[in-house]
Amino acid sequence: MEMRKLAYLGPEGTFTEEALRIMSPDAERMPCPSVSAALDAVRREEADAAVVPLENSLEGGISSTLDELAWGQPLMIVAELLLPVRFSLLARPGTEIGHIKRVITHQAAQTQCRNFLARELPNAFVIAAASTAAAAQEVSLPGSPYDAAIGAAIAGEHYGLIEVASDIGDRSDTVTRFIQVTRPGPLPEPTGADRTSLVAYLADDHAGALLDMLSQFATRGINLTRIESRPTGDGIGQYFFHFDAEGHVSEARVGEALSGLHRISADVRFLGSYPRADGLSPRIRRGTTDVEFAEATEWLERIRKGT
Amino acid sequence: MEMRKLAYLGPEGTFTEEALRIMSPDAERMPCPSVSAALDAVRREEADAAVVPLENSLEGGISSTLDELAWGQPLMIVAELLLPVRFSLLARPGTEIGHIKRVITHQAAQTQCRNFLARELPNAFVIAAASTAAAAQEVSLPGSPYDAAIGAAIAGEHYGLIEVASDIGDRSDTVTRFIQVTRPGPLPEPTGADRTSLVAYLADDHAGALLDMLSQFATRGINLTRIESRPTGDGIGQYFFHFDAEGHVSEARVGEALSGLHRISADVRFLGSYPRADGLSPRIRRGTTDVEFAEATEWLERIRKGT
Amino acid sequence: MEMRKLAYLGPEGTFTEEALRIMSPDAERMPCPSVSAALDAVRREEADAAVVPLENSLEGGISSTLDELAWGQPLMIVAELLLPVRFSLLARPGTEIGHIKRVITHQAAQTQCRNFLARELPNAFVIAAASTAAAAQEVSLPGSPYDAAIGAAIAGEHYGLIEVASDIGDRSDTVTRFIQVTRPGPLPEPTGADRTSLVAYLADDHAGALLDMLSQFATRGINLTRIESRPTGDGIGQYFFHFDAEGHVSEARVGEALSGLHRISADVRFLGSYPRADGLSPRIRRGTTDVEFAEATEWLERIRKGT
Amino acid sequence: MEMRKLAYLGPEGTFTEEALRIMSPDAERMPCPSVSAALDAVRREEADAAVVPLENSLEGGISSTLDELAWGQPLMIVAELLLPVRFSLLARPGTEIGHIKRVITHQAAQTQCRNFLARELPNAFVIAAASTAAAAQEVSLPGSPYDAAIGAAIAGEHYGLIEVASDIGDRSDTVTRFIQVTRPGPLPEPTGADRTSLVAYLADDHAGALLDMLSQFATRGINLTRIESRPTGDGIGQYFFHFDAEGHVSEARVGEALSGLHRISADVRFLGSYPRADGLSPRIRRGTTDVEFAEATEWLERIRKGT
Repeated sequence: MEMRKLAYLGPEGTFTEEALRIMSPDAERMPCPSVSAALDAVRREEADAAVVPLENSLEGGISSTLDELAWGQPLMIVAELLLPVRFSLLARPGTEIGHIKRVITHQAAQTQCRNFLARELPNAFVIAAASTAAAAQEVSLPGSPYDAAIGAAIAGEHYGLIEVASDIGDRSDTVTRFIQVTRPGPLPEPTGADRTSLVAYLADDHAGALLDMLSQFATRGINLTRIESRPTGDGIGQYFFHFDAEGHVSEARVGEALSGLHRISADVRFLGSYPRADGLSPRIRRGTTDVEFAEATEWLERIRKGT
Repeated sequence: MEMRKLAYLGPEGTFTEEALRIMSPDAERMPCPSVSAALDAVRREEADAAVVPLENSLEGGISSTLDELAWGQPLMIVAELLLPVRFSLLARPGTEIGHIKRVITHQAAQTQCRNFLARELPNAFVIAAASTAAAAQEVSLPGSPYDAAIGAAIAGEHYGLIEVASDIGDRSDTVTRFIQVTRPGPLPEPTGADRTSLVAYLADDHAGALLDMLSQFATRGINLTRIESRPTGDGIGQYFFHFDAEGHVSEARVGEALSGLHRISADVRFLGSYPRADGLSPRIRRGTTDVEFAEATEWLERIRKGT
Repeated sequence: MEMRKLAYLGPEGTFTEEALRIMSPDAERMPCPSVSAALDAVRREEADAAVVPLENSLEGGISSTLDELAWGQPLMIVAELLLPVRFSLLARPGTEIGHIKRVITHQAAQTQCRNFLARELPNAFVIAAASTAAAAQEVSLPGSPYDAAIGAAIAGEHYGLIEVASDIGDRSDTVTRFIQVTRPGPLPEPTGADRTSLVAYLADDHAGALLDMLSQFATRGINLTRIESRPTGDGIGQYFFHFDAEGHVSEARVGEALSGLHRISADVRFLGSYPRADGLSPRIRRGTTDVEFAEATEWLERIRKGT
Repeated sequence: MEMRKLAYLGPEGTFTEEALRIMSPDAERMPCPSVSAALDAVRREEADAAVVPLENSLEGGISSTLDELAWGQPLMIVAELLLPVRFSLLARPGTEIGHIKRVITHQAAQTQCRNFLARELPNAFVIAAASTAAAAQEVSLPGSPYDAAIGAAIAGEHYGLIEVASDIGDRSDTVTRFIQVTRPGPLPEPTGADRTSLVAYLADDHAGALLDMLSQFATRGINLTRIESRPTGDGIGQYFFHFDAEGHVSEARVGEALSGLHRISADVRFLGSYPRADGLSPRIRRGTTDVEFAEATEWLERIRKGT
């Protein structure tokens, strides 16, 4: 594959960089200060693609990514990766844990290391940075007011910090899901174990509107793997929805469900069909295979012609 | 229109003949001894079409018609008619009501005149004939063991009987729905106020199977105007279903609902799309017009191509 | 058990009598000329109970029984029986099949012996009687215009007829479901394999009204074993529904489903909870056992009290 | 009302303090460094209640509040408030906008002022603080590395900062919803315009599990005003749900829906029934009023007794 340039949520040393290195080892890397900046680099054709986090098994959806995909100029997800997340307490060489008074890290990392902080650094003041790598960078600066950062081990290596403690997350099985995003174009081929992401906006806020949306999937036997409500910004009680569904839009049942959703929604934005990182194939319900759809369509054509 | 030959549930003088005369005044009429015989005449190309009763507002579905349409060689409904039903007590000239001991009529007519019979002829013995006209014919025969028939006034005229009492039904607003049936061929054009009839067989008898069927209609915003369960003959608890739905199969929402039903059912038999006798146009729900279906299909094609 | 008097659809020799003899061998039997008459005998306290047919695996619901239960003074089903139905061609001693020109039988029997009649008696004229036993009785009368009856073998014995042919039904597995009906009173105890019958009238004829009704059952995990739409008599397109559901009304999930149905319907008539003839126990879905209902109720009381 | 002590998300000068002052003007105020700390103060009985943000019309649910309510020791929502949010750019006296290089604020505020920052401070470095008031406090400290904070005007007043720019949010209609939380106890009385909050955990991750949950509400005619999926922490694809429903748990339809949800879920946590800040009364669907529930219950008792 040709050399490509991938933007990502930087700076160097973030978990996102780690994800990018696994997904596209040979790509040229372009760190960006925020999710928005990484996605804008793709939109402005300064990068071929971007890698950003979409959700975390502990913290949930990454709001900035969700909202950028929903509202910004359209982009398309072409791949995903699940990355176990391990946090380390990083400090300048020579620092002892007993002297750590001010810690900097990303807010999500703070939440995920809540127990460690309460137990080991009960009196430390914790401040939030834009990313865990930015926190490590900040600590590495001469004259930094911070004594330690929480972040990935590779961030420590990158910025010359030591690991005062490792694997300090409350849970050892935390996973972050990263996505690779490009400008709209040809879709990845279906593999039999695919996922389709989309965003739907309610046509009106009637009782049961979400139930109607879910019925469009259920009627075609499609399982949803993620549902996320997000505010539209038009006042409390106004939401739109992120959906991840099993299957590829080229499959009949997925296509018909999306068409149905499109008809009853104010708007639907398709975010992509791409191979699932976990490789799980859906259990396809009776009457929803492509063959059965084709037969039904053929049957319909026959009866419409009266033959 | 050219001269056509129409079979119907005879003999002459039935309500069905009355319906046929209204639907096709110029047709050649071919009375048949049963619904099956009338429909078989069409199947064997001895008649161009048949007129038979489908349901009665008091008695419900006419089982013989429902089962013939479901199981026999396929036919297609092309028109319907709603006919008010008025019953008369018919007897040979000179008969007085006080002398009537034995009455013959069709079972449905007996039920619909229950109150009259209990009040005016409490001791009469009532026997069932294949049709009300057959009953009138029977009474008209010399040496008939029956004193009176219950049937249409025109049956009385036809067989030389007098009306001992008229309009003897328990309700004055009883209506029978008749259908005109042909061999499969080009469908009647959509008029905007159409009905679609079909029969569906459950794929398996799981809890909620009927709910799944109804959801195929509801998801596309289609109202059902009649549902009739009928035994498959394979034992108590095994049913298939007759549905009448609003709309014409050439409309997108009806077509997709039928396709969906076809996919999840063991079998679906299309019985026709034809103008409603009551001329009522359906209230079409948001997102289910042909235009909206076309837009959704176009949108789907665009996203599948990634453009 | 004390001696009881049971009305049934007579005359002697009907399949209904056969069912009654099996259900209540020691009861005094009271034949009645029609389903209505048998049920009225119970209503007027002339009989303790009545046995009538409810549905047939080939012909479907018995309209007169369905409508009597729905509209007449309320009665309660306390037991059911499934009886295989075998038809014989019955004639006066000495009759040969080649001489049979006029056959009398009940309309349902005619339908169920359609193939035999077409094959063996293609030219015979078939007339309908009120019951198969009445047909046998008619044939047995001196001077009867009929040559043969179709009915139960015991009807032949009873009326001195011979079996010209036996087991002449199109299918050998036809079954009729009979019910035993009393005046309302204490319900039969739940057995773990029960059925609950009821009738529900739509509150209004909105699209999806039946779907709403079925959802009341589905939400509580209740499987329906029979659904029958019947016309209300108020014009084509106006229906009410007979439902048979798994379970006993004393069970929480059945009770709540019936309450829910009652709230959204114009009216619901409870027709009884009684042991299933087939002894099948329902597969109870997670979250719908009596224990789970009791826990949920207790939980609700706690949170309402804020404790 | 007696003097009460209310914990809140501090420090002094936060929007939360503003909300608290409106909800409980006479209460003693106890600022806490985090949502967790404020809620823990109530749990440990150091405060009578806490005021914390629950969701923002632009940013969505406040994860820390949602997760604390779901997982921590149970608490109960007793009131809510909707507060318009206006942001100011706050700096030490004498600061000019052209000299601002480093801005500190809460991450949500950064997102909500994205356009202002891009337009007016395109080159500024923005770092995240735990709250907007903490950011203002930080800027007010001698030797602070930050030039400006984004926060509430009252935070500026409180910490001796000037407003360099005011009303700098991207939208002028942004609203935050605050809740007042106590230890579990007697519920607020129903007012006719109430909201009920709860958290439900899926029993198993079958296709349609969320649809089943929503059906429990729909079957009882209950409108949901908010749905929020949150990860359980047990891996990508494992969610639980926050629901806000119309009505008070003391109402029959709400109670039955919650009982139903409890039966089919692994667990349900009730978070409270309390007056809606917007005072909107729900449109109650036919068959779901308390009177109709009482009638249905009474009817059920009658039929169970067979009377």
